[in-house]
Amino acid sequence: MNTLANQEVQGIVKQSGVILTDLELTEIELAGFGLNDFSKEGLALVVYENNDRYCAKELIMLPSQTCPEHRHPDIVLESKEKVTGKMETFRCRWGVVYLYVEGQGSADSIKATVPAGSEDYYTVFNEVVLTPGQQYTIPPNTLHWFQAGPKGAIVSEFSSASRDECDIFTDPRIVRVEED
Amino acid sequence: MNTLANQEVQGIVKQSGVILTDLELTEIELAGFGLNDFSKEGLALVVYENNDRYCAKELIMLPSQTCPEHRHPDIVLESKEKVTGKMETFRCRWGVVYLYVEGQGSADSIKATVPAGSEDYYTVFNEVVLTPGQQYTIPPNTLHWFQAGPKGAIVSEFSSASRDECDIFTDPRIVRVEED
Repeated sequence: MNTLANQEVQGIVKQSGVILTDLELTEIELAGFGLNDFSKEGLALVVYENNDRYCAKELIMLPSQTCPEHRHPDIVLESKEKVTGKMETFRCRWGVVYLYVEGQGSADSIKATVPAGSEDYYTVFNEVVLTPGQQYTIPPNTLHWFQAGPKGAIVSEFSSASRDECDIFTDPRIVRVEED
Repeated sequence: MNTLANQEVQGIVKQSGVILTDLELTEIELAGFGLNDFSKEGLALVVYENNDRYCAKELIMLPSQTCPEHRHPDIVLESKEKVTGKMETFRCRWGVVYLYVEGQGSADSIKATVPAGSEDYYTVFNEVVLTPGQQYTIPPNTLHWFQAGPKGAIVSEFSSASRDECDIFTDPRIVRVEED
């Protein structure tokens, strides 16, 4: 399945015109979140840079693919330093992405379709539609999830330092691991 | 002159395929650094996001245009907090950019041409050539300058918080102001 998923992801990159190096193309992370249905709930990503000050990634989404609801909590580093949760800016580069954050809205009033069988784990429905050139900044510790439109999407993510292992997902079945 | 410069900058954006909103297109900053020769020593930029944690910009460069040599020093905020100098990652999206940082190299061994009349103010020549998809991270407080190749360039800059007014330029004639 992942060979096919990888080919689909590479097809989105090619269509979008976003340039990745050959090495980056071979190292795209396919995050399936342990749910075993990557094209439904999953996310492909390339980390351009991640250091203790800032992070930049390209998020590559298949048609109608959903990144499950999660938040970036405040954390305490090994050094005992307290760090405010990750703050991130999503900028749509290609396609359309439907982003949902805390606030007004309900599951039956949105453009996206909550992934079937996972309805219990999607709880915020304040809709932000991002087309190419549009962006939105998500405050720390704010629940959010997002879904690509019908042709997929490419989203640049600019943020403070990224520590994916600290993310808290609403769906208790989720494990933030790389797929094999 | 700036109407023409602005048209040229917009032409580069259009050629590159990078999508900016209409508002962003009207608000592109043309930084001439007080040298009054924007197409020679200048830089056009769009700030996507700049907060106290991270910054993301798109740098738009005319053919063979040069961003003058400078560094991002450690600073002390009004709150007395000490902040390490800005760290930044340049990722070439379109065209070619010749980047020079501290290290080995000399003015006569590089691909770029030091701007005529400003030779005294270009002192580092460790060459990094960035083509689309290639990137380089510049440590804090490191002298650097960069020049676009013959068709211009678009460079995504990911960084820690940006405080342009704190930049230290090698050329004492430079004032970091917006052109009229």
